[in-house]
Amino acid sequence: MNGFVYSIPTTIYFGDDQFDKLGEVVASYGSCVLLTYGGGSIKRTGLYDRIMGLLQAQGLSVIELGGIEPNPRIASVRRGAQMCKEGNVDVVLAVGGGSTIDCSKFICAGAKADRDPWDWFADKTTPIDDALPLVTVLTLAATGSEMDSGGVISNPETHQKEGRGAACLLPKASFLDPQNTYTVPPFQTAAGSADIISHTCETYFSQDKDLYFLDTFMEGLLRTVIKFAPIAMADPANGEARANLMWASSWAINGFADGGKTQAWSVHPMEHELSAFYDITHGLGLAILTPAWMRFVLAKDPDGTLPKLVQFAQNVFGITDPALSDLERANAGIDALQSFFVNDLKLAPTLTAIDIDDEHFEQMAEKACHKNPAIAGFVDLTPQDIVKIYKACQ
Amino acid sequence: MNGFVYSIPTTIYFGDDQFDKLGEVVASYGSCVLLTYGGGSIKRTGLYDRIMGLLQAQGLSVIELGGIEPNPRIASVRRGAQMCKEGNVDVVLAVGGGSTIDCSKFICAGAKADRDPWDWFADKTTPIDDALPLVTVLTLAATGSEMDSGGVISNPETHQKEGRGAACLLPKASFLDPQNTYTVPPFQTAAGSADIISHTCETYFSQDKDLYFLDTFMEGLLRTVIKFAPIAMADPANGEARANLMWASSWAINGFADGGKTQAWSVHPMEHELSAFYDITHGLGLAILTPAWMRFVLAKDPDGTLPKLVQFAQNVFGITDPALSDLERANAGIDALQSFFVNDLKLAPTLTAIDIDDEHFEQMAEKACHKNPAIAGFVDLTPQDIVKIYKACQ
Repeated sequence: MNGFVYSIPTTIYFGDDQFDKLGEVVASYGSCVLLTYGGGSIKRTGLYDRIMGLLQAQGLSVIELGGIEPNPRIASVRRGAQMCKEGNVDVVLAVGGGSTIDCSKFICAGAKADRDPWDWFADKTTPIDDALPLVTVLTLAATGSEMDSGGVISNPETHQKEGRGAACLLPKASFLDPQNTYTVPPFQTAAGSADIISHTCETYFSQDKDLYFLDTFMEGLLRTVIKFAPIAMADPANGEARANLMWASSWAINGFADGGKTQAWSVHPMEHELSAFYDITHGLGLAILTPAWMRFVLAKDPDGTLPKLVQFAQNVFGITDPALSDLERANAGIDALQSFFVNDLKLAPTLTAIDIDDEHFEQMAEKACHKNPAIAGFVDLTPQDIVKIYKACQ
Repeated sequence: MNGFVYSIPTTIYFGDDQFDKLGEVVASYGSCVLLTYGGGSIKRTGLYDRIMGLLQAQGLSVIELGGIEPNPRIASVRRGAQMCKEGNVDVVLAVGGGSTIDCSKFICAGAKADRDPWDWFADKTTPIDDALPLVTVLTLAATGSEMDSGGVISNPETHQKEGRGAACLLPKASFLDPQNTYTVPPFQTAAGSADIISHTCETYFSQDKDLYFLDTFMEGLLRTVIKFAPIAMADPANGEARANLMWASSWAINGFADGGKTQAWSVHPMEHELSAFYDITHGLGLAILTPAWMRFVLAKDPDGTLPKLVQFAQNVFGITDPALSDLERANAGIDALQSFFVNDLKLAPTLTAIDIDDEHFEQMAEKACHKNPAIAGFVDLTPQDIVKIYKACQ
């Protein structure tokens, strides 16, 4: 195993009984707040009013940036950064899911920088070394952005969807009240859950020597999502299901599970091209790609991938039938995951089903590799491999 | 479930390849260091020389307090605090296991206070609100003190062993290099592992409504210790085993697994009286008490305890035989844990085997309740209940 540095100084306020501390926590960072949010559902649910009440009780002045897109765009980052500069904003309060929080991270950095924010994505060596403090209120269990230091921004002009991270982007505090996810519709609950599963799988499937302890953690996290996502879809105000999904979403990607792994992720870069080209929901793209990716890597490097896929089948889906060969178990695990996505989460099974044809497969596959010869993941994937995976999803 | 605040700002440097950052990290807190350690094994292993080299390379001045006891005593806290005051110490570097780190936490607080450090234990409402920064180098996987904000100190004059915690006592950084535990003898490895298991069980066994996600985490942590402790005993330089035990030890008690539970721990207060009266190794006492405590609470409140004990048997020890009743499964799980302690960890099975008779049982039972009518844990335990548990361990 590799060594690693573990550092997550974000303070989490979990549960309804902690939410009233929001005003006080935001006020500890200054007197002028930029409040960011997405399409406005927080106004319909009453969350906006509750938050404004808490901020006003502290005498804070608030300016607002609503309408942040589901795949947040660089234009929103630019606009928010400009508002911070012009309004002398002290702290950004992001209310939403990963899109709003991701966008707000780069607003925080943009507010402190003299450059165009897209510079950080166009040239990923451009340093991000200062940012306004960020506080978040999570309304969707999915991306884990509330407890990590990264984000993904889209540039529709260049068909690019790019990620960056920096320690200064980590939220100072995040408020996780499961009740704030009760109004998330079934499709978004399903897509968010697929995202959590994919984050975990990206780390879990590795040919590095793992820490067994972290494997047990990830297997438990996967079982948690598999157990509670269908419950939350059928019974949106089920507090137990929402709480489990919410806390699992943060831990799927906050760095704890990594344990010093250095390999690249595989499915996320393939999906980022799909949503960059077609603006589809990220978690839906991941759900379509993941089983096809598993089948491809199993066929390409059976010796390297079989043990972990057998372990996955056994410890996540309880596939232990002694009559099955290892290969049959591995395939049964992949089948079980695909069935979960399609039958339990009701997500579309193929790219064809969401009207994506093969027109851009080669171009997306090239871009997914980021000018490298391959994605250096669980199994290295060349652009030709990636095209085959896209085709297997048709 | 209850809400909770999660905040663990300690930075962990895990693995040999991170260890060389030690000097730099310590130097970031000042120029004068108090180096604390226990019986001197760090001099025999070469760790002392390596650390001194790293500190000297940063031009730090170092004063030393060695000889901190296995159950650290208030006299050592007083002495260390005095040394900090007289030497204008900026930062304390604790090298050792939980005893040295616990003691060093209260040295850090004592250095900043004008009171006698025992005041904090004699009256637990006495605030602990300032402390010198603490950096730790862990040499024994057991207590989790490297990543939590509490500690336990003994006062031999009063037969007291008392715990306190405060946010300012949390280490700023901890260096976890599994290689630094390769020389831990089998008995200490076993006792440390029993301590990790007990921390996890104290949180896991609850009648509160749990987060399933955290249950899966704790079950995985328990399986990790059960898998690797015997390997580390038989093969002390097994890096995989030592790394798993080390990282599991930190996570058993850093607060993550709690998820807002408010109940008191049960077995630790009973054991603290044993080691306060007889100065036995904490983990050994826990291993003797835990199965007897499980049997007692199962008999006292079967409706309240049976579901969780069945879950434990199934998910930790794989006891799923459909021919067994729930009660039989629960008992099989307890038997499996006891067999693990006695047969795999080679720990003494009874108090009698370590020459402890019933002379002080009533007195210890009263003290374990801390002047309350009972320990308000998984099942409430009166002093009479605790005497029965002690007797069941004879």
